[in-house]
Amino acid sequence: MRDLIGEEAQTFVQITLNARETASLYGYKEVITPHVEPLELLSAKSGEEIRQRMFIFKDLGDRQVALRPEFTASIARLATTVLKNDPKPLRLFSVGTVYRYDEPQRGRYREFWQSNFELMGSAKPEADAEIVLLTNNFMKSLGLHSYAFKIGHIGVIRGILSQEGVDDITQNAVLQRMDKKEYDAALKLVESERCRSMLRGLIEIKGNDWLDAVEQIQSYVANYEKAKAAAENLAEVLKLIAESTNVSIIVEPAFARGLEYYTGMIFEIYVPGLEIALGGGGRYDKLIEAFGGESTPAVGCAHGIDRVAIALYTQKTNLARKTEKKVVVLPITEVVKSEALKIAQQLRAAGVMVEFEVMGRKMAKALEDADKRKVDFAVIVGERELKEGAVVLKDLSKREQSTISIDKLFEKIKN
Amino acid sequence: MRDLIGEEAQTFVQITLNARETASLYGYKEVITPHVEPLELLSAKSGEEIRQRMFIFKDLGDRQVALRPEFTASIARLATTVLKNDPKPLRLFSVGTVYRYDEPQRGRYREFWQSNFELMGSAKPEADAEIVLLTNNFMKSLGLHSYAFKIGHIGVIRGILSQEGVDDITQNAVLQRMDKKEYDAALKLVESERCRSMLRGLIEIKGNDWLDAVEQIQSYVANYEKAKAAAENLAEVLKLIAESTNVSIIVEPAFARGLEYYTGMIFEIYVPGLEIALGGGGRYDKLIEAFGGESTPAVGCAHGIDRVAIALYTQKTNLARKTEKKVVVLPITEVVKSEALKIAQQLRAAGVMVEFEVMGRKMAKALEDADKRKVDFAVIVGERELKEGAVVLKDLSKREQSTISIDKLFEKIKN
Repeated sequence: MRDLIGEEAQTFVQITLNARETASLYGYKEVITPHVEPLELLSAKSGEEIRQRMFIFKDLGDRQVALRPEFTASIARLATTVLKNDPKPLRLFSVGTVYRYDEPQRGRYREFWQSNFELMGSAKPEADAEIVLLTNNFMKSLGLHSYAFKIGHIGVIRGILSQEGVDDITQNAVLQRMDKKEYDAALKLVESERCRSMLRGLIEIKGNDWLDAVEQIQSYVANYEKAKAAAENLAEVLKLIAESTNVSIIVEPAFARGLEYYTGMIFEIYVPGLEIALGGGGRYDKLIEAFGGESTPAVGCAHGIDRVAIALYTQKTNLARKTEKKVVVLPITEVVKSEALKIAQQLRAAGVMVEFEVMGRKMAKALEDADKRKVDFAVIVGERELKEGAVVLKDLSKREQSTISIDKLFEKIKN
Repeated sequence: MRDLIGEEAQTFVQITLNARETASLYGYKEVITPHVEPLELLSAKSGEEIRQRMFIFKDLGDRQVALRPEFTASIARLATTVLKNDPKPLRLFSVGTVYRYDEPQRGRYREFWQSNFELMGSAKPEADAEIVLLTNNFMKSLGLHSYAFKIGHIGVIRGILSQEGVDDITQNAVLQRMDKKEYDAALKLVESERCRSMLRGLIEIKGNDWLDAVEQIQSYVANYEKAKAAAENLAEVLKLIAESTNVSIIVEPAFARGLEYYTGMIFEIYVPGLEIALGGGGRYDKLIEAFGGESTPAVGCAHGIDRVAIALYTQKTNLARKTEKKVVVLPITEVVKSEALKIAQQLRAAGVMVEFEVMGRKMAKALEDADKRKVDFAVIVGERELKEGAVVLKDLSKREQSTISIDKLFEKIKN
């Protein structure tokens, strides 16, 4: 775990604000759930891998709890309890920290930030498309470029495996290895040579011409009923995305995602030079049921804010808050301090960023320091000027100073 | 711990945004520290009470860690390490969740939200004043009214106790009881009758005429050198606050705050009808030293966002985001879905909140639902209109509809 300071903290804050803005534009309501949840809830549907990497402990009431490793379990809890009777679709947004006990590496921390979007109640391809489109919107709003969406459909592989008689547990194991690109290990788990050969061929299909790729998949799995239906669904989703927006898509039918709960379209987003995905998601139609709710189709995604920040640095996109005018207010003597504080407050009320001199330094020293820190203006409050309702305003970049009436101060600083 | 949903979540988000805006206006830089810190750090200077109420556990690396019960220890860690050589004053802001294992009650949760401000490097009364003024600014920005600041100075009581020969440990115990208004229990810890009588008298002094109250204190402790100096310092701080802004102050010299690390001015903020403070803080000049840093005067405060939210509800201040125009986009047939998605994205790019119909409902049903949810406009996308670059715009409040060119759509919705 680590600290975020200075520009890095500003970047994080700005990314979360853009995520929230995206949520608002797409009609997603923000919900805030606890960082600590019962272990039972969090481990209900997380993949085995995540389960082993949770921060688990007993609270003082002797309950087994853990730091949330993701948002989805908490959101599913809401969807099956307090929000159960809300009209569908449910569009929910969350942002905050999640926890996994991994070996730290570039873009991977034990405490990391995610923004999370869930769309519940629709089985339609436009719901799948929406999750991808809003991710695109979010990335674009940050000024990120050159990113690409890797898109697949878990139903294609599962369709082949099911029809070849591979049981669910083995399927999960296969998908877990495929997720890590350990294809040999994945194939070894499958007994039938025909099935292995099908998977091998599927791994070969990959392309950034979505239409071509999806047609290849459709004809490749033509004899596998469920896989074929999945490929058709994938084609519909891709069509909606590609026709409605301009975005790079790499279709990869043998791509899998770590979490076992996906049932349909899955996607991840990548930028050149960063091996790790900036975010991803997909469809999980069995999730709500698994949490004890009514069968509810659902699709969702999460974005790794730490990774998005790295991508922004790599692309030299400066997100830091536009620098507003910075002002220091310097009282010359003890007796004018209260008046100087009053002036500082008036300026702030007008939206000006004001640092008040609290070090009791001599004027020259305080100005030297303000200069170093690239402050724009110094407002020097002295007894003589104050008697006439005025102060001395020093423009630190132009090195000019003039006596100015307090009423005019704000106007002068703003222009 | 609990969930924040709907308007409650919006209120929380808005309060944190106002806290951040206050930080920016006063020149406080945001820092983001982990929710989990080594137990050693967190228990270094927290009062005994907080120590017993921490969520402590071992991480998978077998280290004793805990969920942070407050921000100050983490900030002190930064100030004594990475920020050690930064020019003074250091102004730092944080916002997020902190954890204490308390019995839940109104305004008290085990996971709660705080905004935290620290001003390090200045021993001057204007630094103390700044912390109170920015709290005032923050509360005012939220539309909160009728709040009052309770202000005291820990140096007054400690000055009396020290001169009467009461050791530090007993002093802490006395202060802890005074904090809970268990005055009898506090007095019982003190052996000397003269000292007890001094404290009893001090408890009686209390008033909302700050000048009168502070003069009473000054004359009451005239024979106690350190207490007298503390009272003078308190007078200076109060003068700066009262002269520079219009705010209710209750001076209470026998008021103490739970945390043992305070050394000077302390304050809390209250609203009528809520027994629990919305926030508070004070001066802790020994803090940085206790964390292994150089002796650095410091003052800081924290605001309980959960309690501020309760105060806003009580005062019926509606903070929820101003309702912007809400639009639904409804494709009539399958073939226009991509075009409809495109229109939705264009509207969002112009800042309009758009929900796309993902349920595949019939027009009448979708409109009925939009009506129920108080949507302002429906954009109905049909093949015939689309051929002419147009859509049907339905004003759901006026129950009017017209065919309109897509170019004009945004203009029409905004006005």
